Amino acid sequence: MPRYRLTIEYDGSAYAGWQRQENGPSIQAALEESITRFSGERVTVTGAGRTDAGVHARGQVAHFDLARDFPGETVRDAMNAHLRPQPIAVLDAVMTAPDFHARFSAVARSYEYRILCRRAPPALDAGRVWHVGRRLDSDAMQTGARLLIGQHDFTTFRAAECQAKSPVKTLDVFDVCEQDSEIRCSVRARSFLHHQVRSMVGTLKTVGEGKFPPEHVARILAAKDRTACGPVAPPEGLTLMRVEY
Amino acid sequence: MPRYRLTIEYDGSAYAGWQRQENGPSIQAALEESITRFSGERVTVTGAGRTDAGVHARGQVAHFDLARDFPGETVRDAMNAHLRPQPIAVLDAVMTAPDFHARFSAVARSYEYRILCRRAPPALDAGRVWHVGRRLDSDAMQTGARLLIGQHDFTTFRAAECQAKSPVKTLDVFDVCEQDSEIRCSVRARSFLHHQVRSMVGTLKTVGEGKFPPEHVARILAAKDRTACGPVAPPEGLTLMRVEY
Repeated sequence: MPRYRLTIEYDGSAYAGWQRQENGPSIQAALEESITRFSGERVTVTGAGRTDAGVHARGQVAHFDLARDFPGETVRDAMNAHLRPQPIAVLDAVMTAPDFHARFSAVARSYEYRILCRRAPPALDAGRVWHVGRRLDSDAMQTGARLLIGQHDFTTFRAAECQAKSPVKTLDVFDVCEQDSEIRCSVRARSFLHHQVRSMVGTLKTVGEGKFPPEHVARILAAKDRTACGPVAPPEGLTLMRVEY
Repeated sequence: MPRYRLTIEYDGSAYAGWQRQENGPSIQAALEESITRFSGERVTVTGAGRTDAGVHARGQVAHFDLARDFPGETVRDAMNAHLRPQPIAVLDAVMTAPDFHARFSAVARSYEYRILCRRAPPALDAGRVWHVGRRLDSDAMQTGARLLIGQHDFTTFRAAECQAKSPVKTLDVFDVCEQDSEIRCSVRARSFLHHQVRSMVGTLKTVGEGKFPPEHVARILAAKDRTACGPVAPPEGLTLMRVEY
């Protein structure tokens, strides 16, 4: 039974998230439906990252099995034909090893979070950025971000409904770049807790506003207390960029 | 009578273009309407570049006059409030000299043209890129682009309906950059003929496909003949980035 590995781009704005659910369209269900339509088979698609409602992806990875085997290009093109006009595109489909698992085989996930720091609302980037009406101190944010790099108990930045067994994660990268009126936060880790990226970005935005000095981020992390976290950043600024195996 | 200078961002997808017209919404009319709503005055807004239907802007510049004077921030915020939820945003509004003219005072205009070179359709960048289903040779495109830099008679790359007095223009910059599956063309000139950027990009795309060598671009330019031009690139890949004074 051949296993296929997909690389997927999507605009999450109109979806209730990656995961199939009762109340609303999901990326997973749209992909499964497009596979059934061309192959006639009912399948389950497993993703590397279960992105929340409104979160986007440029490089989500997923796998599924089919009884029949098709060339990867056929799978990609057939899925894209059936996904149209939804804002979901299969960038790549390849046959892979039967023990490849999109979620459990992943060794790193990279996300980008975009913050638009200006008075005027976004026209071209609406739904793709967190619109913050003022300038933020990106140097202070970078200083604070550095304190989160490494292996830590990230309980402070964990959603109440998070299902991970342990709150200990290792953050490899947390870069804060400013260009024109936009700040881009790039993070990378083997895996993240539920809402971890948005919780960390929300706290750093508070640092960028000057509400507390960047050194306080270490204290907030050490508190291991959800109530120490700043407001969680909204989903629209977040994009899953890449998954490594 | 104070004159105001605006810097404007817009998504041109749903508009019949910059210029006010009978058949369809225009960026100009939307801006004029938003000014009338907050000031009670009827005005004409003059833009630096009359972008076509579907063309976007990140830094369009325009001017208009009001009988009353308002702080620039008030003009910006009031216009944005009345423009909502249209994808048009006033980034900046300042009072300017009475002889400032958005179109005639401009000394340079910069445009960017984005080409997505992959089989899968755009999901996140739909309506913002020209989707070309295959890779293009961006080195050959850059070689061809260099032959267009300088002062030339650009008749080959001019739309039939172009109203410019002379077909002679001076192209300062034509850079072709490739990143992942996207090619970005950046051009800069004092001014452009109607459809000049899209005509040049369309011809270079043909070069990128290997249909003729980059050196032929010099011959196509020298022909001074509209029929020598490749297909005109579609509007959605084009964005007016900046106007200099």
